[in-house]
Amino acid sequence: MNRHRRLAVQFLLLTIVFWSTAPSPVRADEGMWLFNNPPRELLKTKYHFDVDDAWLDHLMHSAVRFNSGGSGSFVSADGLVMTNHHVATDALQKLSTSDRDLVATGFYAKTRDAEIKCLDLELNVLQGIEDVTARVNGAVKTDMSPADAEKARRAVMNTIEQEASEKTGLRCDVVTLYQGGRYHLYRYKKYTDVRLVFAPEKDIAFFGGDPDNFEYPRYNLDCAFFRAYEDGKPAHVQHFRKWNAGGPADGELVFVVGHPGRTKRSLTVADIEFSRDVHVTRALDRMRRREVLLRTYAERSAENARRAQDELFGVQNERKRLIGILAGLQDPSLLANVRESEKKLRSAAGKLDPDPWVQVKEVIAASDRIYIDLGLFEYGGGFDCDLFDIARSIVRLVDETPKPNAQRLRDYRESNLESLKQWLFSEAPIYTDLETIKLADALSYLIEKKGVNDPLVAQVLAGHSPRDRAAELIAKTRVADVAVRKQLATLSSAELAKSDDPMIQLARLVDPKARELREIDEQQDEVQRQAYAKIAAVRFGIDGDRTYPDATFTLRLAFGIVRGYDLPGAGVHIPAWTTLAGVFERSAQHGNAPPFDLPQSWAASKSKLDGSVPFNFITTADVVGGNSGSPCVNRKGEVVGLIFDGNLDSLVLDFAYTEQTARSLAVHTGAMLEALRKVYDASDLADEITGVARR
Amino acid sequence: MNRHRRLAVQFLLLTIVFWSTAPSPVRADEGMWLFNNPPRELLKTKYHFDVDDAWLDHLMHSAVRFNSGGSGSFVSADGLVMTNHHVATDALQKLSTSDRDLVATGFYAKTRDAEIKCLDLELNVLQGIEDVTARVNGAVKTDMSPADAEKARRAVMNTIEQEASEKTGLRCDVVTLYQGGRYHLYRYKKYTDVRLVFAPEKDIAFFGGDPDNFEYPRYNLDCAFFRAYEDGKPAHVQHFRKWNAGGPADGELVFVVGHPGRTKRSLTVADIEFSRDVHVTRALDRMRRREVLLRTYAERSAENARRAQDELFGVQNERKRLIGILAGLQDPSLLANVRESEKKLRSAAGKLDPDPWVQVKEVIAASDRIYIDLGLFEYGGGFDCDLFDIARSIVRLVDETPKPNAQRLRDYRESNLESLKQWLFSEAPIYTDLETIKLADALSYLIEKKGVNDPLVAQVLAGHSPRDRAAELIAKTRVADVAVRKQLATLSSAELAKSDDPMIQLARLVDPKARELREIDEQQDEVQRQAYAKIAAVRFGIDGDRTYPDATFTLRLAFGIVRGYDLPGAGVHIPAWTTLAGVFERSAQHGNAPPFDLPQSWAASKSKLDGSVPFNFITTADVVGGNSGSPCVNRKGEVVGLIFDGNLDSLVLDFAYTEQTARSLAVHTGAMLEALRKVYDASDLADEITGVARR
Repeated sequence: MNRHRRLAVQFLLLTIVFWSTAPSPVRADEGMWLFNNPPRELLKTKYHFDVDDAWLDHLMHSAVRFNSGGSGSFVSADGLVMTNHHVATDALQKLSTSDRDLVATGFYAKTRDAEIKCLDLELNVLQGIEDVTARVNGAVKTDMSPADAEKARRAVMNTIEQEASEKTGLRCDVVTLYQGGRYHLYRYKKYTDVRLVFAPEKDIAFFGGDPDNFEYPRYNLDCAFFRAYEDGKPAHVQHFRKWNAGGPADGELVFVVGHPGRTKRSLTVADIEFSRDVHVTRALDRMRRREVLLRTYAERSAENARRAQDELFGVQNERKRLIGILAGLQDPSLLANVRESEKKLRSAAGKLDPDPWVQVKEVIAASDRIYIDLGLFEYGGGFDCDLFDIARSIVRLVDETPKPNAQRLRDYRESNLESLKQWLFSEAPIYTDLETIKLADALSYLIEKKGVNDPLVAQVLAGHSPRDRAAELIAKTRVADVAVRKQLATLSSAELAKSDDPMIQLARLVDPKARELREIDEQQDEVQRQAYAKIAAVRFGIDGDRTYPDATFTLRLAFGIVRGYDLPGAGVHIPAWTTLAGVFERSAQHGNAPPFDLPQSWAASKSKLDGSVPFNFITTADVVGGNSGSPCVNRKGEVVGLIFDGNLDSLVLDFAYTEQTARSLAVHTGAMLEALRKVYDASDLADEITGVARR
Repeated sequence: MNRHRRLAVQFLLLTIVFWSTAPSPVRADEGMWLFNNPPRELLKTKYHFDVDDAWLDHLMHSAVRFNSGGSGSFVSADGLVMTNHHVATDALQKLSTSDRDLVATGFYAKTRDAEIKCLDLELNVLQGIEDVTARVNGAVKTDMSPADAEKARRAVMNTIEQEASEKTGLRCDVVTLYQGGRYHLYRYKKYTDVRLVFAPEKDIAFFGGDPDNFEYPRYNLDCAFFRAYEDGKPAHVQHFRKWNAGGPADGELVFVVGHPGRTKRSLTVADIEFSRDVHVTRALDRMRRREVLLRTYAERSAENARRAQDELFGVQNERKRLIGILAGLQDPSLLANVRESEKKLRSAAGKLDPDPWVQVKEVIAASDRIYIDLGLFEYGGGFDCDLFDIARSIVRLVDETPKPNAQRLRDYRESNLESLKQWLFSEAPIYTDLETIKLADALSYLIEKKGVNDPLVAQVLAGHSPRDRAAELIAKTRVADVAVRKQLATLSSAELAKSDDPMIQLARLVDPKARELREIDEQQDEVQRQAYAKIAAVRFGIDGDRTYPDATFTLRLAFGIVRGYDLPGAGVHIPAWTTLAGVFERSAQHGNAPPFDLPQSWAASKSKLDGSVPFNFITTADVVGGNSGSPCVNRKGEVVGLIFDGNLDSLVLDFAYTEQTARSLAVHTGAMLEALRKVYDASDLADEITGVARR
């Protein structure tokens, strides 16, 4: 530590006294904590709870990540995995046809033989974490240009992963934490033979639909069960969650073990303002556009509605989420707090040269200049359809795999190829009519943003209107056929260049521009990582390890208590619980009209159900998107609920934690059992999860 | 004519030979012709039809304009007016409450006493047209600045209208034709006591909903009947359309008499490109945003759905229309034709100084710079709710009316005040919950576009979030009360400035900025008028009076034949007709699910109806939005149908006429009669329109 830095740290120590007078995160139920740095002290102080290593290890090994986006957990020794219906929907949709809509009708495999193998679902179970910060940062020299630094960092990350993967046989990912402040290596056991065991009907899983999404009170049986298989047999797992059908008590401490997707709490004010002014508003415009497109497609027929339902749900969910976030960011009070914190942090940091806050701001300005093009060409906004994504991945796979692993684009690194091919060669259905309207709209969007006279756009459209060009591309490409994809992927780059497949040609046409933009973006990202690493160092200097990094879709431990809340200024208290009886009342209030209609199975079972059984409940635990499907466990590690949503006030958690009215929502274990036994006649499954018997 | 101009015209005459080798509009069923310049020659040549003056005069006097936006016609001597259900919806919605949803249930007044008076509907019937071009242009001197020229033109237009209005007692409007090439004075008889006689249920009027909107084949009973009253009694009208229940034959010549809203066929290429790149795309983004907002509101409850339905329909209709237009404009072939025509016109024009095409381009660039602000502040995009519009109109009414008529903003000119107050003091219901979500979204949009640090935006928000500010404004303003509005409107500007009503304060806060932008816009408009007047002169030099101006929501005569069409490349022929039986088949195909469900009245009457009666039919007549409700009449002037829509391919008619697959859609007179007699037990009404008896 040089003298300058040492002085800065001494100054930091002095400021801690001042900091502790401000509202401290230590007192709140805040945090998405790393499993290799759990909040031992905080839990001890606030809840007199000792984090036991075996307890922690058990939670970690029974946690499951759905690579399609979501969380889950083992709930039996035979590899039974619990998650949300809305996490399962991706798999359900891919297994559905015009004659069999598993999303709508639900499914129950009465025997193991009847369990249906998913088409491309990959589950990950974390086995261990290793800090590789020194090795990653060691590869990047201080005098390197951003371009060289980015290459060096990518090379060492690709290499670490490949080495670890070869050594352990596990999936190994280097994860960037604290926006660049730390690098940890995560090792996962991977399951690719995953079978569907149970899903309820969408109408009860997502009762209330978009109007009730992110709201509370709720009445959703948002659960589903899969089974992990190994060598064609149910996986025998040592670590799985015990079931506690009684659920949690009011005010009880609970833990959430899952994979929060992405938060932006440690961003600088400038970065948050960029989110508010650019990121979120542009993403919202795109979401509204996609929502209208998909809805108008879906409303033309029941079959269209079935084809579009999963994507439409995702878009509506994201639209509602972003509106909630924007409302938070446009509320002056939230940003005032962030501004105040940053002021203190900068003052604690003293004079840094270059100033990392200024560096971040410069990168933002630079990234704003390529923002739209990057979205159009690299992230596919101008070509939004599955067949383009597939064609582009084939083009890049063929271009990247001959290169040494260290030099490849991250997605094509050796340790990721298996997962990539799981998706690329999936037999998931592709609907050409839906593909055509999506691509036509994307090409129209491309024109809107770049103008008809842009030379690349002109080449893309080849003299046609967006609709005609999209229709031609989708009709003539052969990459909808998995055998064709596999064959194309074996070609050399030169051979592929000769392919007359129009979608492959399009992907090749666009790729130089897309890669150019990506390279600029990655260099900007490198500069930002370095700046944020400095800011993180200042923060570590103050907080030590009493801090947690922003969410990265990796395993985290959150905690909170089961608690209702008062609506501000309304004199209304929202209780922590709803009951099974409540869903029948709410449906009746809406004349049983969609999306408040109940499936036939529930209407028929009303008299059998115990209406007093809790249905959904809320907690103060710090939960965001990606946590969907996370188990809610008690001090003993028993599962007492299943996280499926947050309320509207929780949407700002992406940027700042608050527990006044923000709540995470869970399905009660009692409700799941009651429904399995009395609505779905699924006693074998109920017995398996409660450990009564082995079927 | 100076020498330079004379040479130019000689050159034009030479080029006509060349022009006639290109596809000529003379051969197509093109045109929205002025009643004082009907296409006599064209109809004579193509259809051997002589336009008789009495015939024309009869059509004109029986045509009705709905000032809420749409067309209609007298169909009995007792002032019975026929229009579309979707034109009537504005009035139906305003007459509805949570207990009485006239839009959904429909309505039939069995006796005249039962006819319901509309809250603020105004009907106009054209009495005569006078060319006032010389007087309008005479007021504008060639050496005037754009600002002075705009003032002078506004002054003379306001004055002409006031003089004519005082002289005739009629509503008098100076209409700008050919983008500034001509000015005509339109004199209307006005009806403000208008009563609802009949409307069917929305489910049959708008069968197929948004998915089938702008599509064909169709099965819509999109009709409604009102009655004009004078002095508390049914208006006795001399001119009304005779009913021909047999409808038109296949291939028969028909005429459409109505008020097309707005077309842009005579725009320069630069102006059309501006529409494509800016106008339409930004309007579409706004529409999608409003659609998602209104839909999410509507889906929360049946009552919400009722409150939002009319506005939501309007937004969805506009979204679908704009997408169709954009698809046309992004098709290289449409613009290639326009470009070719412009090239010829410019070459025919010779050297003009200043070049009007260059002038238009310069104005476009200038208007682009204020485009977003103008939308936000002057056209209310930043404050989108009824209560703001009302407050702003009170503020301006109080500021404008003390000024001499010639100096007032156009909306506040003496001859328009009665119509303005008809709206401003309407007892139409206002829903504060819907107002609040709309205003909150508009304020959020204002921040998105202007940034939180804009000084005016900061004043508008007053330190609150958009949601909090909107809630406060809507809760505290008293302008929802018509008595309060009337009282505020009597105040002087200085007195109003002291009002503590927060919405009045907001309107006053924003008004200087809004007026400043409007002034710039009107000056730009003046420059553009002058440029387009020069372009129009070139066109007149070529076409003489064998031309028609772009649509201006004034009475026009269109014509065409009843004809099916072939789907390009599909080998499918779409016949000109559908039948009543078809609607039951289409509903069944969709499992009778919304929006393909039939009302109970239709399901119950199926066996009574003659399924072979034609339901809807299509014609090649040149029809756009605003024509909704126009009668379709035969050579004898008898009504044979009721225009209600165009197909998707007709949406480009805003920019260019085509008759290959573009069609206007009409309800067949036979279907209306069959439904009135057999579904709605409305024989008295059926007798009145067929002239069988006077009830």
